[in-house]
Amino acid sequence: MQSAQPTGTNMQNLDTPALIVDVNVLRENISRMQRLADSFGVRLRPHAKTHKSPQLARLQTGAGARGVTVAKVGEAEVMADGGLDDILIANQVVGVEKVRRLIDLSRRVRLAVLVDSREGVQLLERAFGDAGATLDVLIEIDTGKGRCGLSADAEIKELAEAVRDSASLRLRGVETHEGHVPAGSTSSVQMEERAVAAGRRVVEVAAMLRSRGHSVEEISVGSTPAAPWTASVAGVTEMRPGTYVFNDVNQMAIDQATPDTCALSVLATVISRPAVNRAVVDAGSKSLFSEPARRGFALEGYEGFGYIRQAQMARVVSLSEEHGVVEVTADAGFPVIGEQVEIIPNHVCPAVNLHDELYIVDGDDVIDVWPISARGKVR
Amino acid sequence: MQSAQPTGTNMQNLDTPALIVDVNVLRENISRMQRLADSFGVRLRPHAKTHKSPQLARLQTGAGARGVTVAKVGEAEVMADGGLDDILIANQVVGVEKVRRLIDLSRRVRLAVLVDSREGVQLLERAFGDAGATLDVLIEIDTGKGRCGLSADAEIKELAEAVRDSASLRLRGVETHEGHVPAGSTSSVQMEERAVAAGRRVVEVAAMLRSRGHSVEEISVGSTPAAPWTASVAGVTEMRPGTYVFNDVNQMAIDQATPDTCALSVLATVISRPAVNRAVVDAGSKSLFSEPARRGFALEGYEGFGYIRQAQMARVVSLSEEHGVVEVTADAGFPVIGEQVEIIPNHVCPAVNLHDELYIVDGDDVIDVWPISARGKVR
Repeated sequence: MQSAQPTGTNMQNLDTPALIVDVNVLRENISRMQRLADSFGVRLRPHAKTHKSPQLARLQTGAGARGVTVAKVGEAEVMADGGLDDILIANQVVGVEKVRRLIDLSRRVRLAVLVDSREGVQLLERAFGDAGATLDVLIEIDTGKGRCGLSADAEIKELAEAVRDSASLRLRGVETHEGHVPAGSTSSVQMEERAVAAGRRVVEVAAMLRSRGHSVEEISVGSTPAAPWTASVAGVTEMRPGTYVFNDVNQMAIDQATPDTCALSVLATVISRPAVNRAVVDAGSKSLFSEPARRGFALEGYEGFGYIRQAQMARVVSLSEEHGVVEVTADAGFPVIGEQVEIIPNHVCPAVNLHDELYIVDGDDVIDVWPISARGKVR
Repeated sequence: MQSAQPTGTNMQNLDTPALIVDVNVLRENISRMQRLADSFGVRLRPHAKTHKSPQLARLQTGAGARGVTVAKVGEAEVMADGGLDDILIANQVVGVEKVRRLIDLSRRVRLAVLVDSREGVQLLERAFGDAGATLDVLIEIDTGKGRCGLSADAEIKELAEAVRDSASLRLRGVETHEGHVPAGSTSSVQMEERAVAAGRRVVEVAAMLRSRGHSVEEISVGSTPAAPWTASVAGVTEMRPGTYVFNDVNQMAIDQATPDTCALSVLATVISRPAVNRAVVDAGSKSLFSEPARRGFALEGYEGFGYIRQAQMARVVSLSEEHGVVEVTADAGFPVIGEQVEIIPNHVCPAVNLHDELYIVDGDDVIDVWPISARGKVR
């Protein structure tokens, strides 16, 4: 058995790799996003995919967030078990077993899912009808991401009518994930333009549906990179950013975070110094994930597979599963075997999904250990 | 709770995403590698990082493999608990807590770890000495990978002497991971040259150490892509391939596998058809991992983020955490919502690490479910 270290220990006694979360940075990140949502007059429904922890979600609701967003039924079950009672599954739910679990969940919490097809609507309608249960749905609108969601007005209208014709479904509103906002962005001005355009498009869709007699109480937008702008569009009612709670190199690469506002690091140990310019740490793609950093306009200095706090001129140049290869320059000093370093992941959400617990630290003290209860809940 | 499906069901009843393993392809892959090792007259010590399952490791030892290779102490613990009694941790083990666990393990199974530094040797020597225990070590030789391992003869000699001077450590031999063999390879001829050169180099190092009075009983080489060649070098005693047990797109990209010799797929469901040329499945980077396919000489047709068995002209063009976006061409047919597809991952090892169980199938029947017991054992 891997032993769980007791709280009250110094961080340097932790076995590595380990996810450490600075509780003060975390709390400030939570407050800052809540203030932004309040300033727009919209409800904040954070995406729990970043932390996968009911404890952390309760910090967010305690600070004013309304419920939580998840991507999978399994994540919703974990959040419901952890006391969250207002859950949006921001995904299409397809499959007999998943819908059975969805029906169970709908009797326990305020629940909604996304739809973007007649087939999806029929599947939910029939199963919930047979069970004598009801479900709220939001129509997903593609505002440029090119993933799920409808874009043509005619198709959106048809789908809204299909929901209205269903006895077991209720149209709560419209939803978009403006995940395209940071993609290849060349400036924050460009990001703002894309983010505002996405917000205007969903508000326009909502107006179109209302003009046809549909009730659209929720106009929900998502994504941390777009958060400063999309929800500022008049009419938007809800925002669902996730990454802000920890931040990561991707956020640094678009100038929305600094190392000081990143709450989570992977604590790693130098295990080998095979050459003067090379150190190897015990955190690889199975601890940091393997995404290259987002190509953002402020990327400079953040290339590589993670940002090392202790040696800013040392770069994680490659990862294999259990090894991070660090190119060491003269400026970086010469890390010795046994030394610990803290590495900010490029994309924090999938990195968290690789681990079983978060070590909560205040300064150098480990003050708590939270299980990442929704890790691996891909169904 | 996510429910575990009972065995005896048809594969199409599985909730998705799910890892499915074709038991017949698996058994043939295991036999083929054992025959290769036997033909070289070397012992096979498969790397369990690919499957992380003691059940599967026992199939390998049952077919003739000698023990098992792992990368982490936590993986070694799982394998020992699962009945494997001869374990090589092919990694440097650094850290107080890890070495404490290593001592416990050394009392339960035949155990060895790698060393490539004086500091690493001293750390093990002291802890094992204090505990009155002993440990076998292999010196890691860098034959071109550029990760851990020593390359200069002088440093190798010095380290061997440090091990000889230690009362609690015993030099079992030398080791290399020739992971550079497939990197950017332009032909199998180039791979063969690199693989044989790596084998010759470790044999040469062993000879050098023997000439200085060191006992070198094991000359251990690794990696599936190099397997057809490195262990053919006279003197090599042990090979440690991992990926062969399942194979993957990376192996297809260097002409060492075909879809028919890939034993593992990620079973996924089409959840959205937002455009004529786009389908979205419920398996993203949290099920398939996010590595692009290896740049191999036989890559053509295997680009993208996984190979779809049912629709060979449809490509997984992008992944987000829970979504796989499939570009659909006319040739691919038009997958409907609810349809299942089987996707071979680009790199199977980290994909397996994202899941909790393997569904073992024979034809369309689920005949067993094996827990991926060493998933996430990164310490």
